[in-house]
Amino acid sequence: MEKILYCKPGEIEGKSFEIIGEELQKRGIVIPKEQEAVTKRVIHTTADFDYAETLVFSEHAVEKARQLILEGADIVTDTNMALAGINKKVLARFGGKAHCFMADETVASLAKERNVTRAAVSMEFAAKLHKPVIFAVGNAPTALLRLYDYIQDGTFLPAFVIGVPVGFVNVEAAKERILETSVPHIVNRGRKGGSNVAAAICNALLYELGR
Amino acid sequence: MEKILYCKPGEIEGKSFEIIGEELQKRGIVIPKEQEAVTKRVIHTTADFDYAETLVFSEHAVEKARQLILEGADIVTDTNMALAGINKKVLARFGGKAHCFMADETVASLAKERNVTRAAVSMEFAAKLHKPVIFAVGNAPTALLRLYDYIQDGTFLPAFVIGVPVGFVNVEAAKERILETSVPHIVNRGRKGGSNVAAAICNALLYELGR
Repeated sequence: MEKILYCKPGEIEGKSFEIIGEELQKRGIVIPKEQEAVTKRVIHTTADFDYAETLVFSEHAVEKARQLILEGADIVTDTNMALAGINKKVLARFGGKAHCFMADETVASLAKERNVTRAAVSMEFAAKLHKPVIFAVGNAPTALLRLYDYIQDGTFLPAFVIGVPVGFVNVEAAKERILETSVPHIVNRGRKGGSNVAAAICNALLYELGR
Repeated sequence: MEKILYCKPGEIEGKSFEIIGEELQKRGIVIPKEQEAVTKRVIHTTADFDYAETLVFSEHAVEKARQLILEGADIVTDTNMALAGINKKVLARFGGKAHCFMADETVASLAKERNVTRAAVSMEFAAKLHKPVIFAVGNAPTALLRLYDYIQDGTFLPAFVIGVPVGFVNVEAAKERILETSVPHIVNRGRKGGSNVAAAICNALLYELGR
């Protein structure tokens, strides 16, 4: 049977990142330095090396996102799981807050009334925060589509979009819409993504600042 | 550009499951009827068809887990993200509660004192609930190893183990240990898994009962 390595608590993460680095090298994949922390943390969270080939970063995306965090930007996500996973302590150190409006009762009733998704309505709530917002979409393509409409009609401009919903219907198309825009972004092309991926990207951005 | 399908809120999930069914068929993969809801929901959560080949179910695992839920079993998970994702309303309808002890301060201080992981200590807290417990491990192999030790020394028997931690160090070996035991289980062989997968499996078990 495979042996268990004895590790002190806290050592496992370092060893894991070493292994990820080695395997990327074996596969001949070179991640640009600026993107390394994000891509490796997503692989760490999923054990899925596909992400090394599908994550798309707009120019200087990581630098821009970190600058926004340093300036106190909030993070709005479309899933309570991602909200649970985001390191809110580090974010708070710079004056930022993480939000998820999905469980808000007003969001639910407005969505029902208008026959749209709660995710779409929750983006509208986020637009009213009146401060720079990093969107971390891990679930609902309709959240990305609502943001795309905002960007197109110019009524609200997200400061940054992490577009990593997962799924089989409208997910790929919604991500492509965001890739077209000039809003700084990190998007995972294709079907894959999820709340865990959204949280991992946020944390990769945060941890470097929190050290 | 790929077109966006117009879907009413609520329709997307049904369409997604249809697509998953079609693609499994195209790949020639036949999922045993009893396992279908779980396997498809995991694929729905990850967009990763690998799970159709790596999820391992002990005999009548789904039936046994559902019976436990009907009898009021609690669910204990090793991540707050999974806790956020599990449908606690449906669980509560049968008298069950979902717990995660990872953020408990006593867990943290005991772990530090003994130089073990918080996940291992949190399993010990779960063992003291004095009711049947379904364990949903989405993150820490050390949680599975602590449960394995319990099973081996006979001091505590988990009612059911969902063993789907993700990672690169000790994850595969810890899962293999659980596969050896006679405790009813759903385990994802290999490196893949995660809190999203743990929550998806719990919800697949719960939704059928909640309808």
